[in-house]
Order: sequence, then structure tokens, then C-alpha cells
Amino acid sequence: MEIVRTAAEMSVRSRALRGEGQVVALVPTMGALHDGHLSLIRIASELADFTVASVFVNPTQFGPSEDFDRYPRDLSKDGALAESAGCDLLFAPDAAEIYPPHYATVVHVQRMSQKLCGALRPGHFDGVATVVAKLFNIVRPSIAVFGQKDGQQLAIIERMTADLNLGVVVVRAPTVREPDGLAMSSRNAYLTKEERAQAPALFRALEHGRSLYEAGERDALKVAEAVKGMVERESSASVQYVAAVDSETLEDVTVLRPGAMIALAAVLGSTRLIDNVVLS
Amino acid sequence: MEIVRTAAEMSVRSRALRGEGQVVALVPTMGALHDGHLSLIRIASELADFTVASVFVNPTQFGPSEDFDRYPRDLSKDGALAESAGCDLLFAPDAAEIYPPHYATVVHVQRMSQKLCGALRPGHFDGVATVVAKLFNIVRPSIAVFGQKDGQQLAIIERMTADLNLGVVVVRAPTVREPDGLAMSSRNAYLTKEERAQAPALFRALEHGRSLYEAGERDALKVAEAVKGMVERESSASVQYVAAVDSETLEDVTVLRPGAMIALAAVLGSTRLIDNVVLS
Repeated sequence: MEIVRTAAEMSVRSRALRGEGQVVALVPTMGALHDGHLSLIRIASELADFTVASVFVNPTQFGPSEDFDRYPRDLSKDGALAESAGCDLLFAPDAAEIYPPHYATVVHVQRMSQKLCGALRPGHFDGVATVVAKLFNIVRPSIAVFGQKDGQQLAIIERMTADLNLGVVVVRAPTVREPDGLAMSSRNAYLTKEERAQAPALFRALEHGRSLYEAGERDALKVAEAVKGMVERESSASVQYVAAVDSETLEDVTVLRPGAMIALAAVLGSTRLIDNVVLS
Repeated sequence: MEIVRTAAEMSVRSRALRGEGQVVALVPTMGALHDGHLSLIRIASELADFTVASVFVNPTQFGPSEDFDRYPRDLSKDGALAESAGCDLLFAPDAAEIYPPHYATVVHVQRMSQKLCGALRPGHFDGVATVVAKLFNIVRPSIAVFGQKDGQQLAIIERMTADLNLGVVVVRAPTVREPDGLAMSSRNAYLTKEERAQAPALFRALEHGRSLYEAGERDALKVAEAVKGMVERESSASVQYVAAVDSETLEDVTVLRPGAMIALAAVLGSTRLIDNVVLS
């Protein structure tokens, strides 16, 4: 499969594709591809004529004490997996290509970036919004596909894409889960065997929250507390938050309704995990 | 001349032009066009096949106590002037078109936005960078032309355009001056007759600074003090700053050299004026 390393070459390649009338889709990733990413690539390749996956471990979205250095990297494996799912081109720039000397610009989405994970990871969503804006401008896709598992990220990217008139259709793809319910994540590789056995408690608790809603409970606080209680009873995870927010605006929801997202973050051992369900 | 009011219509129009192989140029303005703007439009129309001028008094670049409400607006006059200079299309959206409900995104250029005028007008350059990023994405020009008179703005826009991979060639156009040397500005209209008579002292002082450099003086602080002293001797203006900075990076310059910009801001009566010269 074609691998492109520079923004200039990527821009030229993408312009040529658009000139031929091809619909280009982009799947931005940090590599360490798993079945979740591959489902995004499959969705993209069904919607578009030409699918680009980017692989870039973006330093600006990691905090100083986070896992940037140990984040898993294996480009040749990623390339083979991406190709098997229908990817036509891998865009894999290095950090100096994306952030050259004198680089100074930050894209910030107000309010939405500061709550939930944003409150715990200062600057994280600025890093995400900025690199996605750059990738959109380099590749200029018609379509970009992101996973619902990173629900706050998705809402922020949708907002930023509309606000900056980026002209990209952002597609929400469903979370892909392991057979026991654990949301797929490159960070699951950090879990010990014992932690891995406990990790499905997060999704079980979210499903319990959903079942309370489906049985008629509308009090968001009560449901969030039930979810938190279940995670803590059924695992040794430390819950950072359980919150109910609008899945598009991320505004707090006190009375549960369709479109509300119950989101949680928890730390299991040394690994931070997130997950969410959207009520229908 | 063609006038377009919505971002959607502008995007479609511009895409059609690019599809025909036409080179599109953009001249972003806040209206109240004077000969300075018209020179930008003339330069754009010489470089491009199709010239768009935007007219948008951008609320986010005005501080709460600034002149947003009284800023001069006369779209039909602007249209006639722009057309006379070679403009093909006026893009004149209203504020709700550019900042719809739930709008939340800010483009911030670190360091460069916080000094000089940025220190005196908090948030001003965030407003500028954000609206220019949006206008670039809506119009998708190949070329955009800005005046050297707003030297800090120009450097910030160049930085942001490169950083966000916007793919627009930013052209620096020379400052256009009245016969007595006053840099053209829509805000000159605020000056009383007496203030207008004093206002050329700013450029005279900058030219004095340049002549000191040309005579061999390299101490930026000495030259800045000489410029400040001359403005204060020859007018009743209150100098906010005189600074020597690199015209591209805006980093402080202590030893004058080609490419250094001597920039000043001063308040004359109730009107804030800025000007600069770039050393060669």
C-alpha cells in the first residue's frame, strides 16, 4: 500500500484524486490499529472512492505525565491491517512535519474542551482539535470517520469542523467491543491479565445505566450514581467521572432523553479507560 | 457586481471557479474601503483570474470598549469602489452567518498574539486569526492579500496559514499613505481636523527611526526612544508602544537589521492609530 510521509506530497496526491472526481475519506488514527480502527476504515471505504488512514501519535494531545513515550507504535503492522480493511493510502508524517520550528497555532473549542476528560487532561482536546484541523486541511477529504467510543472527541471535532467551515462530513461510527463488552482501545494492551478480566465492568455498568433509563428512570444523577456504584463494586477501577451530557453539544443533561450520552472514565491499575453509551 | 451573503453559496461559487481552472484571490476587509484596500484589490486582480473581497465587520476582534458599533459601514459604496479596482465578487455575510448559535471555536497563535497590539487588545488577534481561517476555508482562495500597515496581523496570519496547512499564498502589500505620509486607515475618519493635522507625525517619526538606522545606528532601544520622542514632540498623541521586532516572527530585535520592523501604536484624541516601517 502507498505510504506518504510529507504534508506537501499528501496535498498534491489528494488534489489529484479530487481532480479525477474521486471522493476521498480520511480515518485519523494514532496507529496501533485494532478492530475498532479497522471498522472505521471499512465504513470509510464503503462511503468513499479512496480511503486515507493517517497514523500520527500526536505529541500535543498527551500530558507531560501521560503515555506518549510508551504508546504502541508499529507502522508496518498497521499498514498491513489497514490495507486488509480497504485503506488505499497511509499518511504517516513525523512530528517535525506536523509541527515544524516556530509552529505556534492552537485550535480551541470553548466549553466543550474543558469538561469530562478535558478537565482531567488539560490541553488534550486542543491538541486533538488542532491536529484534526491540520489533517483535514492537508488531506481535504469529503468524509472523515471517527469512533463513538471517544464520544467527547467526536462532539468537539464535529463542532470544530462546522465552526471553521472545513467542509468535511464527519461520520460517527459505532464503538467496536471485545466479546465480553470491553470497548476496543489501543490502551487495552497496557492492562495486566487481572485488570483485563475486570475491565468489562465499565461497559456492564453503562448497560445497567441504559437499562434503568429504558425501565423509565429519567434522573441523570441517579443513573450516574448507579453506574459508578456498579463499576466500583465489580472492579478495582477508580472512577474519575460518570456524567450524562448531550452527545452533540456536551451540555449537561439532568433529565435523561434520547441523544443523551452516559460517559465514564476510570483508572484500572495504571491504565485510564473511557467508554460511553448514547440513549435512544 | 456579484454580492454573496452566505458561506454555503460562496463555497459553491468558489468551487465552481476552481473547477474551471481559475485562480481565485481573496482580499479580506471590514469594509469602509479606502485607497489602501483598493490597492490590495488591484494587486489581487493582477495575480488572480477572479478576485473576491470580503466585507465583514468582525465582532470578535473588537474589545468591549472599542468601536464596533460606530465602525463605518456602507456596503453599496464599498461595492462600487471594489468593482472599480477590479473586484469580481463581494462576500458580505452577516454575523449570524459567520458565528451561528453554539459557535465555540477559537484559533489562537501563541506568543505572537500577545505582544504589541495584542497586549493592549486582549483577544483581538484570536478574533482576527479565527475569522481569517474561516474566510480562507469558505472561499478557498489560492492567494490572499493583506496590507503591511497591519504588520503584526500580517505576521500572525502568515504563521496561522502555514501552521494549519491552509494552502493559501499570503501576499504582503505595501502600506498606502496619504500625501502627507499618514497611513490610510478606516479609523482616520474619526480624527478631528486638528488631530488629522498632527497625525503625520507618526510616520515622520518612523522615517526618522529608519534614517538613524540607515546612518549606522543599530541599537533598537535607542531608535525606538528617538521615534517615541519625536511623536511626542510633534503631536499631542500618547504613544502606547514603539518596538523593534522581526517582521515575520515578531520576536524582539535588539540589534537592528534588514527585516526588522519598527512598529508603533499611539492614541490621538479618542482614535488609536498604528503604523510601521520594515528595514531593508
